[in-house]
Amino acid sequence: MLAARLHEYTEDMSEPLSIDEVDRPSVDVSDGIVVEVEGAGWCQTDNHIIEGMWTDYVEQTLPMTLGHENAGTVVEVGEEVNTVEEGDRVICHPVATCGTCRACRLGNDMYCEDLSFPGLTTDGGFAEYLLTNERAVIPLPGDVDTADIAPHADAGITAYHAVKKAADELNPGDTAVVVGVGGLGHIGLQCLDAMSAADIVALDVKEAARDLASELGARHVLDPTAEDIPSAVDDLTDGSGAQQIIDFVGADETTSMGPDIAAPGADHHVVGYGGHVHEPSQTLVDGELSYRGTLVGRYTELQELVALVDRGDVELRTSQYDLSDINSVAERLEHGEIEGRAVIIP
Amino acid sequence: MLAARLHEYTEDMSEPLSIDEVDRPSVDVSDGIVVEVEGAGWCQTDNHIIEGMWTDYVEQTLPMTLGHENAGTVVEVGEEVNTVEEGDRVICHPVATCGTCRACRLGNDMYCEDLSFPGLTTDGGFAEYLLTNERAVIPLPGDVDTADIAPHADAGITAYHAVKKAADELNPGDTAVVVGVGGLGHIGLQCLDAMSAADIVALDVKEAARDLASELGARHVLDPTAEDIPSAVDDLTDGSGAQQIIDFVGADETTSMGPDIAAPGADHHVVGYGGHVHEPSQTLVDGELSYRGTLVGRYTELQELVALVDRGDVELRTSQYDLSDINSVAERLEHGEIEGRAVIIP
Amino acid sequence: MLAARLHEYTEDMSEPLSIDEVDRPSVDVSDGIVVEVEGAGWCQTDNHIIEGMWTDYVEQTLPMTLGHENAGTVVEVGEEVNTVEEGDRVICHPVATCGTCRACRLGNDMYCEDLSFPGLTTDGGFAEYLLTNERAVIPLPGDVDTADIAPHADAGITAYHAVKKAADELNPGDTAVVVGVGGLGHIGLQCLDAMSAADIVALDVKEAARDLASELGARHVLDPTAEDIPSAVDDLTDGSGAQQIIDFVGADETTSMGPDIAAPGADHHVVGYGGHVHEPSQTLVDGELSYRGTLVGRYTELQELVALVDRGDVELRTSQYDLSDINSVAERLEHGEIEGRAVIIP
Amino acid sequence: MLAARLHEYTEDMSEPLSIDEVDRPSVDVSDGIVVEVEGAGWCQTDNHIIEGMWTDYVEQTLPMTLGHENAGTVVEVGEEVNTVEEGDRVICHPVATCGTCRACRLGNDMYCEDLSFPGLTTDGGFAEYLLTNERAVIPLPGDVDTADIAPHADAGITAYHAVKKAADELNPGDTAVVVGVGGLGHIGLQCLDAMSAADIVALDVKEAARDLASELGARHVLDPTAEDIPSAVDDLTDGSGAQQIIDFVGADETTSMGPDIAAPGADHHVVGYGGHVHEPSQTLVDGELSYRGTLVGRYTELQELVALVDRGDVELRTSQYDLSDINSVAERLEHGEIEGRAVIIP
Repeated sequence: MLAARLHEYTEDMSEPLSIDEVDRPSVDVSDGIVVEVEGAGWCQTDNHIIEGMWTDYVEQTLPMTLGHENAGTVVEVGEEVNTVEEGDRVICHPVATCGTCRACRLGNDMYCEDLSFPGLTTDGGFAEYLLTNERAVIPLPGDVDTADIAPHADAGITAYHAVKKAADELNPGDTAVVVGVGGLGHIGLQCLDAMSAADIVALDVKEAARDLASELGARHVLDPTAEDIPSAVDDLTDGSGAQQIIDFVGADETTSMGPDIAAPGADHHVVGYGGHVHEPSQTLVDGELSYRGTLVGRYTELQELVALVDRGDVELRTSQYDLSDINSVAERLEHGEIEGRAVIIP
Repeated sequence: MLAARLHEYTEDMSEPLSIDEVDRPSVDVSDGIVVEVEGAGWCQTDNHIIEGMWTDYVEQTLPMTLGHENAGTVVEVGEEVNTVEEGDRVICHPVATCGTCRACRLGNDMYCEDLSFPGLTTDGGFAEYLLTNERAVIPLPGDVDTADIAPHADAGITAYHAVKKAADELNPGDTAVVVGVGGLGHIGLQCLDAMSAADIVALDVKEAARDLASELGARHVLDPTAEDIPSAVDDLTDGSGAQQIIDFVGADETTSMGPDIAAPGADHHVVGYGGHVHEPSQTLVDGELSYRGTLVGRYTELQELVALVDRGDVELRTSQYDLSDINSVAERLEHGEIEGRAVIIP
Repeated sequence: MLAARLHEYTEDMSEPLSIDEVDRPSVDVSDGIVVEVEGAGWCQTDNHIIEGMWTDYVEQTLPMTLGHENAGTVVEVGEEVNTVEEGDRVICHPVATCGTCRACRLGNDMYCEDLSFPGLTTDGGFAEYLLTNERAVIPLPGDVDTADIAPHADAGITAYHAVKKAADELNPGDTAVVVGVGGLGHIGLQCLDAMSAADIVALDVKEAARDLASELGARHVLDPTAEDIPSAVDDLTDGSGAQQIIDFVGADETTSMGPDIAAPGADHHVVGYGGHVHEPSQTLVDGELSYRGTLVGRYTELQELVALVDRGDVELRTSQYDLSDINSVAERLEHGEIEGRAVIIP
Repeated sequence: MLAARLHEYTEDMSEPLSIDEVDRPSVDVSDGIVVEVEGAGWCQTDNHIIEGMWTDYVEQTLPMTLGHENAGTVVEVGEEVNTVEEGDRVICHPVATCGTCRACRLGNDMYCEDLSFPGLTTDGGFAEYLLTNERAVIPLPGDVDTADIAPHADAGITAYHAVKKAADELNPGDTAVVVGVGGLGHIGLQCLDAMSAADIVALDVKEAARDLASELGARHVLDPTAEDIPSAVDDLTDGSGAQQIIDFVGADETTSMGPDIAAPGADHHVVGYGGHVHEPSQTLVDGELSYRGTLVGRYTELQELVALVDRGDVELRTSQYDLSDINSVAERLEHGEIEGRAVIIP
């Protein structure tokens, strides 16, 4: 089968991946599953992997097939698989977990002590077939398109996970600030609107993103290049500040905004990870402010997100590309030329 | 009456306060209360106030009587006070709140939109008498000594507030790391022991502090100057890391310890505020780590702490000083020469 | 001023109240407030008070002016009132609380140890003027009609309080069953829709109520007189049952429905109080089912509900009556002839 | 091997089980595990199973080996088992779960949609060997005795699960009432003492049980046959009532105690299941009281309980019996003649 593989780390996004002919994976454990990939989202993290940014955090053996936002149809199941069968359309949670460690038992899939992460630590979904396991797949409702939903496997669940933590703390009349209305942000904003009755203020430097935010449920949109954000948030909240901040950018200039726009006791959720958190301890103390990192999400949260999609509460902007065009995606993303989420169709 | 007052900000701790003869305060609102002070704890924050470190955060008019950890006997009550009467022994929550703003209504005393903070924004308790209000006072159980309990009014409640948030997240078998076993830390450690069944690992550079920690319930103590803390915590937790970290120091070298000793999804509570939090966003994301600032505590939490003291679950190490000796306390604290918490007896 | 007062308990709803000329109340404490009533909702509880059903639970001295769902304009304030002034339009939380007991400090207004409850324990709002206090009043946003919002003071907040507890437990894809779409139910349903992404199934014996439920956000409506509810809920939830049940009726036949429609670990919230909860202990154990009573709501929850109304998330069906027609309301309600919530206009 | 099996339901406890020679079970799935049983607790539920009380709730095929509180040594593992190996000493969570349904994914083992329950729905541990699976076993720390810990597999975890829910709601100074200090109650009391700083009031009709309660951490003990419980609790709590009630009996006379001893907003946890919950809906509403059923507990909670045992926080009173004496246990339990928990040693 064909697979888009990384052979060496590079800063050059002109042709980072090579389309190779490789063996189709097959099931080798009782709960193994092979999925015929029908859509695989391209994620900013793929660019980071290509650049070698993840070598400090995980073990990678090259060449490796990228692609960790996958959906498709089950074509082979291990002999003890009970919950899906050949022909079922599924979305794949990004990690294939053990199910027996304490983290798994608590439902914290991302903390599994014995996980594989296709597209990050093993071969991923920019290929015709993907090997995962029963604990990773979620059957799709009838009306949901397989290729369209693929980016929810990582972008969607990451946004949902952060937003769910924020929504738990929000009451009607509270204000939530969404920083960055890109791939993750536009999903997060819709989830927040569906799961809370907070007033959403969305920030983005791009006009198109702000327009999208307004369309998707933001009560107010702000342009950080044109407005003084702290004073604008102060006005919008009658001086009380925002109870929750969900920062899909995570750059120096967005994390540093927290103390100036936060209500006492607020959380600044760090989802994006471009820059640093850098504040005096006294600033965290004085406003009882928390910076809360957020890491992908739970399997059960992906089930919940699929339910939101099925209800029509979350729509995803995607553009589709053939596997053979995959290198153009890396480069276009680098230059900010992708509209919505790019989905590779193997 | 006599009061120890700050006339100008100074770095010089040799004689920062002046003992002045001033008018005794009297009640001027229906819920006002005058307390005859029987004990007023000296706090590291008093040193910071003297140095002018708080002028960026609050409005202060000098001269001002310091002292925000107060306990004593009610000697005058406003005409609509119902819950205490003259002669009642009380501990004073550090802020006198309005009771009508949303923050007060939610129980978040520290966020009150119309509070006074004796010893920080108005005259405090290093004096014979203190003016506060009904919403700030908590009657003391019979067996509790008034002067001894005074430091709980701020040091105690701050430690308790942080620890309660940590205890809510801790299960039996989990590990909590207490960073710094000084004035706040030795209280926090005991509260944690009373309220959770987590294994407590205490860190302090001083041997006496580590001995105290062992005596008060720490299962393990570590010396950061002699041991590699990440590897020690790794050993003690079979590689899983600490689920909660309560950092009573808040210096650069303690906040930076968090990512190296934290279990996935852990909280690093920032209570002390000497230095900075400085981490790449990716570090917060990768371990789903939170840095959570913590600010004093709720009135109801001070009630709960008084109950712990009354149960015998928390003992406080104090040394007492006459009001006339107050300047020696500032200086000794600067040089780390105070054993336990210094309490001024006006 | 004129006031509709109960002089003796009676089962006869033909003319239970008498319109008396009484003295206008005036402020006698520093936080007292007199409101000129512009709308006062009539509640099923008023019928119960008339029948003497509350004498076992609270102390009542007759004659007493009824009316505990009040809104109007502030006309007199105590000398220490800071948060409202004459001319402000307000909705009144049903209880005037002390602000100093532990329950108040925790935000649990209904548990206040020293409260007055106008219309239940002191004179209420079926009168031209009402005496309450600063802790009970919430200023209204500009667009909200004073008379229209009055029923939210009790019906609304009670529905909101129950629904908020349910919403905290609901995830997207879960099912919530709303039992009874009357005065409280139709508010609760809208709050639930605004605050969660659960699928709502509404039950009512009346066709008009079911139609209203569909219009207000119920995904499915069921008629208990025509359908087997357990099997219908089983079908709608693919056999898993409902995660939350909010029972606005509280009759024997609705509380007994719980175990047959509940998912494991579900809550059956008891809001209405016509009948009994009667189940074998083993039934609660086997399904880990909870029956949770729910009592009015918090002041801060009424703030949140006002925010929902201001956002346009909750609309209230009301019909207005002059004070002189008040006795017709009691009787019509008894016969189920009131459309929406009756509001008395003094 | 030998196994104590039930051949027909009976009320006669003189010789309900027969000691049969049966085949040793062996592993037939990749995660299967055979444990050589070293201790199997006898539970009141075993008497109920013998009487046929569970036929309405689960499917049972007779003859069946009873015994659902098992601990022992792993002697055979399926080919994909990773977390234990032959020779490991383990305690067995009562249910062997699938690991893939949503309930399992959320950590709610007891709600698993595809579980087996040895001793209740398949052959249990009153036998030399037991078949279970990898998701059910928890390795034991070195110092814990295998036979002694066995009853924690069901009695312990059930008590722990209920108490953990209660402890989450308890603050220092609050009161928790433990109803019944028998097999479950004496474990629950110790867990509560370890995990909270609430004042514990224990109720039992037996003097020995009350003495045990005092020894294990109850601050007060009460005899329901000699004292008026509501008035005693009122005195002990200065009129505020108990914030949490954990009812290990679940009889009519204990569930009906709830409203009379509960603080506003309290929970009455129903653990035992002899009788009924029977209260007017208005009683639940008026005190905002909840009756919360509680069902065994989570695998992760059994891990936590093992940690408590390892810390020395929970001791279990047991008496040991040979498998050949098993029928005497059923009868003695019926007559209340067992001291502590009976453990069968196959």
